[in-house]
Amino acid sequence: MKQIAILGSTGSIGCNTLRVIESFKGEFGVAALGAGSNVELLAEQIEAHRPRVVSVNDDESANKLRHELKRRGVASQPKIGIGVDGLCEVATINGAEIVIGAVVGALGLLPTYCALDMGRRVALANKETLVIAGELMTRAAEKSGAELLPVDSEHNALHQCLRGERRREVKRLILTASGGPFRNSSKEEIENATREQALNHPTWRMGEKITIDSATMMNKGLEVIEARWLFNAATDEIDIVVHPQSVVHSMIELVDGSIIAQMGVTDMRHAIQYALTYPDRRPAELPPLDLTALSKLEFFALDAEKFPCVTLAYDALRKGGTMPAVLNAANEVAVAAFLDGKIRFGYIPRLIRGACEAHTPQPASTLDAVLAADRWSRDWARQHIYGHHHSQS
Amino acid sequence: MKQIAILGSTGSIGCNTLRVIESFKGEFGVAALGAGSNVELLAEQIEAHRPRVVSVNDDESANKLRHELKRRGVASQPKIGIGVDGLCEVATINGAEIVIGAVVGALGLLPTYCALDMGRRVALANKETLVIAGELMTRAAEKSGAELLPVDSEHNALHQCLRGERRREVKRLILTASGGPFRNSSKEEIENATREQALNHPTWRMGEKITIDSATMMNKGLEVIEARWLFNAATDEIDIVVHPQSVVHSMIELVDGSIIAQMGVTDMRHAIQYALTYPDRRPAELPPLDLTALSKLEFFALDAEKFPCVTLAYDALRKGGTMPAVLNAANEVAVAAFLDGKIRFGYIPRLIRGACEAHTPQPASTLDAVLAADRWSRDWARQHIYGHHHSQS
Repeated sequence: MKQIAILGSTGSIGCNTLRVIESFKGEFGVAALGAGSNVELLAEQIEAHRPRVVSVNDDESANKLRHELKRRGVASQPKIGIGVDGLCEVATINGAEIVIGAVVGALGLLPTYCALDMGRRVALANKETLVIAGELMTRAAEKSGAELLPVDSEHNALHQCLRGERRREVKRLILTASGGPFRNSSKEEIENATREQALNHPTWRMGEKITIDSATMMNKGLEVIEARWLFNAATDEIDIVVHPQSVVHSMIELVDGSIIAQMGVTDMRHAIQYALTYPDRRPAELPPLDLTALSKLEFFALDAEKFPCVTLAYDALRKGGTMPAVLNAANEVAVAAFLDGKIRFGYIPRLIRGACEAHTPQPASTLDAVLAADRWSRDWARQHIYGHHHSQS
Repeated sequence: MKQIAILGSTGSIGCNTLRVIESFKGEFGVAALGAGSNVELLAEQIEAHRPRVVSVNDDESANKLRHELKRRGVASQPKIGIGVDGLCEVATINGAEIVIGAVVGALGLLPTYCALDMGRRVALANKETLVIAGELMTRAAEKSGAELLPVDSEHNALHQCLRGERRREVKRLILTASGGPFRNSSKEEIENATREQALNHPTWRMGEKITIDSATMMNKGLEVIEARWLFNAATDEIDIVVHPQSVVHSMIELVDGSIIAQMGVTDMRHAIQYALTYPDRRPAELPPLDLTALSKLEFFALDAEKFPCVTLAYDALRKGGTMPAVLNAANEVAVAAFLDGKIRFGYIPRLIRGACEAHTPQPASTLDAVLAADRWSRDWARQHIYGHHHSQS
């Protein structure tokens, strides 16, 4: 029985990972679960999967969890860790072979680094980890021989397309983008888009942060940075094509002009299962993709004018060092402020540009360095928002 | 310098092969060329590529070729072989590493067998070879360790999709079909289609025989049989999906539900180059595929009612032995008779069905056995056409 540790077990990826594990009936065991404050769901997961170690965000959640487990009559309680230390305990638990990295935000950095450093396979759904600290993570994986497998559907697709190819014979990685809810909107409509409009994603059901990132297309920009590190690609080798149907999950172009594409249903369980069973492919519980039931597949060029976040991401990647961390942090603050009604939709890219322009990139060679840049950017962005909108914290 | 022998050098595949060889400026040499009666073009190819051995269909063509070479002042004349013996000399010429199998019809069988038997890589564009004698060819290749690489765009696509996959993890091979000129025609319109209508293929420019096969969709049926042998697939593992744009050249479905597709421009040089340089991929002279310039990609289920040839091919493959040879031969006679104005378009499948129903399949374990079935079927079909139409030979 292969033991799995999940960082972020109560989120969308975490829950889907547990569904995949259940579908394999006894082949995978759950060694450890890292969550935040959703103790009811975590207690349920503990009851079903009996991990030895779990983690929550703070003491209050830990107490609630103990209480909830008692209420449910769970006999053998797991060890309960707290915060980032707790997540690191989850990631490094004895006997786990695969770590699912699905914590949202910068919190996942250290536990993911620890898992890679000790040579564990990491199935990574946490984009920020590679955006902020791609150099560190890939260096750690290379040193220890750890496999870093993408759970993002786009990067998972690229991983599949690259299986039979030699890296030097690959000319381009082509990330597909649904185009989000504003694909056909005018610049003005996008500028003043409401919360409801921005949260109405055409093809994928996801969390709020990533749904807004899809609307600004920063999500695709972050994926470009992610692809750079996952596949050791030059910035110019990574392209984006808008594909509203989200059936082609991504493609590669070979030097001989051939394009290899991966297609599938829009369900995260596919990529999760792929990362769990790799290099094997195993029958899935998902419905098959019926190509003849689709009306058509379309491909459009990206309109960089309408979606300036993409260019900001490419620029940050080219500048390198701590710049992508600053881009990412400013984006997080901007998206939260937009969701909170503090800034207009069109202000998101302007805020990010401001942060990037104000930053002098440093080498991203230590976790401290990238976390310092992350903090600097958050502070800069928050000050800027409040300065601009005269609202209080 | 890798030496190449081309069976069928003056046909479409042969000429494109020489273009690819020229584009590699000195990396490939032309050891031998096998042609039919187009001696002007063959002489031109001899002048440009200086093969040591060539072959034509008969003594008359050989004399014409000698005269033409003299007229052009070609100093060192190649050895000139005749008929199937000449083609076998081309296929087995000393020093050639790759043999291009692009002779039309059953004539290619023996030379292809000889090349495979001596362990040479065969880049196969001659469908009939595998339809008639798939078991023999693949057994010969297996025994000698010869590589059998498909030059057909569909099978070449499948070969590319399968590069990184394990055969047992592949659930389906999905051949794409343009649907031909009668995709949107009624059963009645197809029944009485004219020669001009049938020759008007929407996406590919090819010879007349294969263009008619595309219109009846027998071409796809023959490709199903070809795929069975190339990829050692069960009949039920091979599917067809109609894709009018011919951008996706074919796909595979894995057991986990993932679909891997190969896309490219519709130019045979891609598949030829792939077969020449495999396992390497090399930069091509072809224009890249611009997905954003395409309007859309569509996929439809095949209408087996309208295109009965496909079911006939599946049935022949299931019955096995010499049955596919009978199917193929009856089809060749029917298509020639249609092009010659002797039978209606709708009569093509009926004639093939008649031949298959009249045939008791034998084991296809020797070339003699399959060639006897081929002859039997041609005779049956010719007799049937003339009996039916009261016309003379």
